[in-house]
Amino acid sequence: MKKRVVILFSGGLDSATVLALAISRGLDPYPLTIVYGQRHSVEVERSKQTLMKYGIADRATVMEFDLTLFSKCSLINRDLDVPAQPVNGIPSTYVPSRNLIFLSIAAGFAETIDAGKIMIGVNAVDYSGYPDCRPEFIEAFNRTVSTGTKMGVEKSLVVEAPLIKMSKKEIIQLGMSLGVDYSLTHSCYDPSPDGRSCGVCDSCRLRLIGFKQAGIKDPLDYL
Amino acid sequence: MKKRVVILFSGGLDSATVLALAISRGLDPYPLTIVYGQRHSVEVERSKQTLMKYGIADRATVMEFDLTLFSKCSLINRDLDVPAQPVNGIPSTYVPSRNLIFLSIAAGFAETIDAGKIMIGVNAVDYSGYPDCRPEFIEAFNRTVSTGTKMGVEKSLVVEAPLIKMSKKEIIQLGMSLGVDYSLTHSCYDPSPDGRSCGVCDSCRLRLIGFKQAGIKDPLDYL
Repeated sequence: MKKRVVILFSGGLDSATVLALAISRGLDPYPLTIVYGQRHSVEVERSKQTLMKYGIADRATVMEFDLTLFSKCSLINRDLDVPAQPVNGIPSTYVPSRNLIFLSIAAGFAETIDAGKIMIGVNAVDYSGYPDCRPEFIEAFNRTVSTGTKMGVEKSLVVEAPLIKMSKKEIIQLGMSLGVDYSLTHSCYDPSPDGRSCGVCDSCRLRLIGFKQAGIKDPLDYL
Repeated sequence: MKKRVVILFSGGLDSATVLALAISRGLDPYPLTIVYGQRHSVEVERSKQTLMKYGIADRATVMEFDLTLFSKCSLINRDLDVPAQPVNGIPSTYVPSRNLIFLSIAAGFAETIDAGKIMIGVNAVDYSGYPDCRPEFIEAFNRTVSTGTKMGVEKSLVVEAPLIKMSKKEIIQLGMSLGVDYSLTHSCYDPSPDGRSCGVCDSCRLRLIGFKQAGIKDPLDYL
């Protein structure tokens, strides 16, 4: 029997690459998409297309979770602007404790379906400086899961972040080698109403540089 | 200025005691109640009465979060029975990753309101054997928060579990000394439709033994 893995799947470039990687390794993927009131909820719509491509749309779990309580974040609070330039320190697009919350929900879901692994597409090279994308966070979270969940205590439950030390260029090259269709992915924090990417937010900027360095044209439409 | 603290507040015996303790220490409490589709949602109604007593009902945050996805748990899945006797190992009332998820949400909330502390009423003495009530889990979670949140990295964010090594008798004695009105608290996992406690589930059992050992009559109505 294939080993089950929960994949935190936003439909973005990174998580689409992680999904392809899990499939290439012969794992049995259970994508978990969390809708949290984010500005760029177009990514959730887009995410379905990637899952359909792999024939696992029926396997997807979408969880609605209202984080508008965390109103200091510009991805959630539409009265705040998304920065168009890199900033010093942790930017306003930081969603308080987002990956901590997402991984915790993924842990509960993994326990429910008896999956021994969770995969997440965080990256600490070409990234926005969020603390919850770094290796030390993933390591500490793994210790927490191994002491604080039934699955972690009685069997094994491990979070893997396979892209964490890769550049965006390397992630795109990996994805291309695995056949990822990046035209189905979405990265922009602040897309236009018709779903086109802004091209200037931190997420677009990192994506565009990655494609350029990889010598590949980004298939997305930009404003 | 008083120091802000987020208190995970279910309205049960333990969290009501933690709230009274925080107030007695001169902290500025922000109670966070999470409604997750649990069988005993009467506790949420009851919790408001304790907050009204302290004049902080307007300060309360109630967050709805549907965990029915985690259907293996008998507190959530009403097709399963709540065990009336202690069991070997972790019982079916274990909610997958509950305290991990709750503390993660509390961390995001604490970051949003600039609170440097989270308090939770978990207890590893008179308890049901849940892994997420033990000191090693709280310690690992604290390491996770200090590496993986903006507040933890830039300032300080600490989870305190002041009851974790106390017996239920000691918790009740502490609460009585602080003036907690235990008639406003609720512990039963499987209350009757009119809100009375069953008296036989693990939670009722531990509560009743605690009151007995403390030499105090439990003010609640039992079936």
